[in-house]
Amino acid sequence: MRLVVIGGVAAGTKAASRARRVNPDLEITIYQEESETSISECGLPYFLSGVVGRRDRLIARTPEAFAEQGIEARTRHRVESIDPDAKELTVKDLATGETFGDAYDRLIIATGARAILPGIEGSDLEGVFALRFLTDADAILEHVRERSPKKAVVVGGGYIGLEVAESLTLLGMEVSLVEAADQLAGAYGPEVAEIIEEHLREKGVDCLFTGDAVEAFLGDEEGRVRAARFGGREIEAQVVVAGIGVRPEVALAEAAGARIGATGAIWTDKRLETSLSDVWSAGDCAETTNLVTGEPGWFPLGDTANQMGRIAGTNAASENGVPLEFPGVLGTGVFKVFDLGVARTGLSKQDAEEAGFEVVTAAVEARSKAGYYPGVRPVFLKLIADGETGRLLGAETAGGSADKLVDVCATAIWGRLAYPDLVNLDLAYAPPFGPALSPVIQAASVLSNEFDRRKQGVRASE
Amino acid sequence: MRLVVIGGVAAGTKAASRARRVNPDLEITIYQEESETSISECGLPYFLSGVVGRRDRLIARTPEAFAEQGIEARTRHRVESIDPDAKELTVKDLATGETFGDAYDRLIIATGARAILPGIEGSDLEGVFALRFLTDADAILEHVRERSPKKAVVVGGGYIGLEVAESLTLLGMEVSLVEAADQLAGAYGPEVAEIIEEHLREKGVDCLFTGDAVEAFLGDEEGRVRAARFGGREIEAQVVVAGIGVRPEVALAEAAGARIGATGAIWTDKRLETSLSDVWSAGDCAETTNLVTGEPGWFPLGDTANQMGRIAGTNAASENGVPLEFPGVLGTGVFKVFDLGVARTGLSKQDAEEAGFEVVTAAVEARSKAGYYPGVRPVFLKLIADGETGRLLGAETAGGSADKLVDVCATAIWGRLAYPDLVNLDLAYAPPFGPALSPVIQAASVLSNEFDRRKQGVRASE
Repeated sequence: MRLVVIGGVAAGTKAASRARRVNPDLEITIYQEESETSISECGLPYFLSGVVGRRDRLIARTPEAFAEQGIEARTRHRVESIDPDAKELTVKDLATGETFGDAYDRLIIATGARAILPGIEGSDLEGVFALRFLTDADAILEHVRERSPKKAVVVGGGYIGLEVAESLTLLGMEVSLVEAADQLAGAYGPEVAEIIEEHLREKGVDCLFTGDAVEAFLGDEEGRVRAARFGGREIEAQVVVAGIGVRPEVALAEAAGARIGATGAIWTDKRLETSLSDVWSAGDCAETTNLVTGEPGWFPLGDTANQMGRIAGTNAASENGVPLEFPGVLGTGVFKVFDLGVARTGLSKQDAEEAGFEVVTAAVEARSKAGYYPGVRPVFLKLIADGETGRLLGAETAGGSADKLVDVCATAIWGRLAYPDLVNLDLAYAPPFGPALSPVIQAASVLSNEFDRRKQGVRASE
Repeated sequence: MRLVVIGGVAAGTKAASRARRVNPDLEITIYQEESETSISECGLPYFLSGVVGRRDRLIARTPEAFAEQGIEARTRHRVESIDPDAKELTVKDLATGETFGDAYDRLIIATGARAILPGIEGSDLEGVFALRFLTDADAILEHVRERSPKKAVVVGGGYIGLEVAESLTLLGMEVSLVEAADQLAGAYGPEVAEIIEEHLREKGVDCLFTGDAVEAFLGDEEGRVRAARFGGREIEAQVVVAGIGVRPEVALAEAAGARIGATGAIWTDKRLETSLSDVWSAGDCAETTNLVTGEPGWFPLGDTANQMGRIAGTNAASENGVPLEFPGVLGTGVFKVFDLGVARTGLSKQDAEEAGFEVVTAAVEARSKAGYYPGVRPVFLKLIADGETGRLLGAETAGGSADKLVDVCATAIWGRLAYPDLVNLDLAYAPPFGPALSPVIQAASVLSNEFDRRKQGVRASE
């Protein structure tokens, strides 16, 4: 039996490795468009800044390493079409330009996501970049070496934009962060957005809220970017990086007749099988379920891609046996901007209201360690709960220990815990690791008071 | 209505504050034997080492602060007896030596726990200490100032002994840690014990396994300790600190006729009410439920004491309304020894086997950040699961991010999650905060393979 995997990072490589483990007799080929496999794309901002000095550290496994595992990984190869009835592919060797045919018994589509480019005037100027692939980081670094830019514009205040703003600052540039909305980090509430903005300003990043998209990038005579323009204003920049988001790469699957889901990503069932027979999909190109709402969800995140790859690889490789099911995700994420950790899971207040929940929230300004312990830092935590059942629906946090608090909240949502559970939750305490009562417990206690008040209100009005 | 609280740290002060919040009309008195209230006893090792420089930083609230809240906190007062029928107390003012009577409508016993002293020859020598109260730390520091000890013996390799070994090393002493059992940290499995031992040796602490208790402390002519003796061997020491454990302080409650539970602590029901009418108990003196086994449990931990105090305070202060229930605990704990974080939750393998579970375990050696990210550290994680249902029963961990991993596992146990949940759990990932798949997910994946193997074994033998 022959398994072909389209895509050689995160979901694709995890699926291939898992398939090998499950079925030692399987013939496995990975087609990967880039010239490397198993690239940690989440590490790109740190390679860009020089925090991670060696480029090869970002590559978890080379084609040679896959070969040792009995997996053929063909880089610089693009699958151009899928014939799902004949179970055949056409593949282009990007090095030679030649096209050839291949066949599969089972196929996994892990084509990932692609950076959204601002489709505006001047996007093709030298010095205007997105940061999605390792080759993008290479190109930015090459440009930096050649032109020694003093000023940079980063377009987009989501986590990629924020990480890149840090990277470019660490490279010695004066950075302006340009955001079309009226707050940074749109997936978060205003409190976290303000904490981020304050931290950025402390670090010397200028945050500009345009109220609208950038209008154009302006170039010099030699076709090199010199400024970004919006609202009649020009911001000088010798380098521009756009981090305005990503979009699932579905063209190949769509052309083959695979169903595309409501989110715009490839539709999959619980087993991560697509609408095409013997074709699975995993990672940033695939749709899954939002575990809190039960609705279709699309969450292009590295850890989720790995988890989906594990399921798709197991199921595609099994000739019999009970298929594994992927339950869905909460959209848990964390990022760092300079010294600030920022994280979220589940639904934001706005998400929850849009999903029809009656929402109760509670927020605390807490601390990352005992108040007297050296290195203690502030941390903000907001819990979002269902007003009817008291169940935790989401959480967002910024500051010291944000990564820990969000993982506790994500696990609590997974376990469908409500505020009375959270108040009594038995978490670990010692002064170097947190306050006597975890910020999660503190916030749950505020939530509990809030629910008490509501009950009294109801009683009073009866 | 008059509430009396016996005990002025953690559970006692939390109960009093909570009672005040719930019932503004309540008359509240705290009797506290020590000369300060609201002392962070978990912070004592850091005050001892000088990491926390100012003594007053360990005191969260003074009697004056309580007074502002309308709570009378009387320090240096010991309650000597309780008459539960008359609802009366006799109280001794330790400053004047006078005894007087008081009365209560409701009473909370939060007498805490007391250090177990090794009842051996020489325990009364100058320079032999336990570390339980702030006054103990004062006395040790006084001794260190006067005698400038070069060598120290710490008796007991539990978390208090380990923390004190660090404190005394930081004070410049050569420390020998003496443990009667054949491993350190007896609540943990051998893997974690070895990690701790290796770390201690790196930091210059000599770990001695006596196979038996210390036989005697030996003194000089002036009655000052000069050595500890066991198995015919003498270990030089000008200071000895015993950290061999604590015991619930139940004498007062027992003399009043309160039921003592199977664990030796004061029996309480779900509402934390004792067997005496209108008397609650919370904190290190009180018994609660082990949430994993459903059996009575006794867990003298600061955060648990606070949570129990919240429940006892609420219930004792409420004249009507639905009483709160305290569900019980998992025994989650974390401690730091030098640069190593060590943590556990739920049942150890041995606990689980003794409780009658058929146990499956999985362990991983993982990392605290992405492998390429600066500051990455190793972390060991072991999961203990129920072989029948796959449910997580316990976890233990040592290394970078141990405090985070244990909190995730504790929350998972609380939510009764099993390994298929843990494999797919949606935790936060970014390179500065962890590997692409959390060590919890990695370990759950090993657990999953283990369960698969067992199923195949069953199938093969059918």
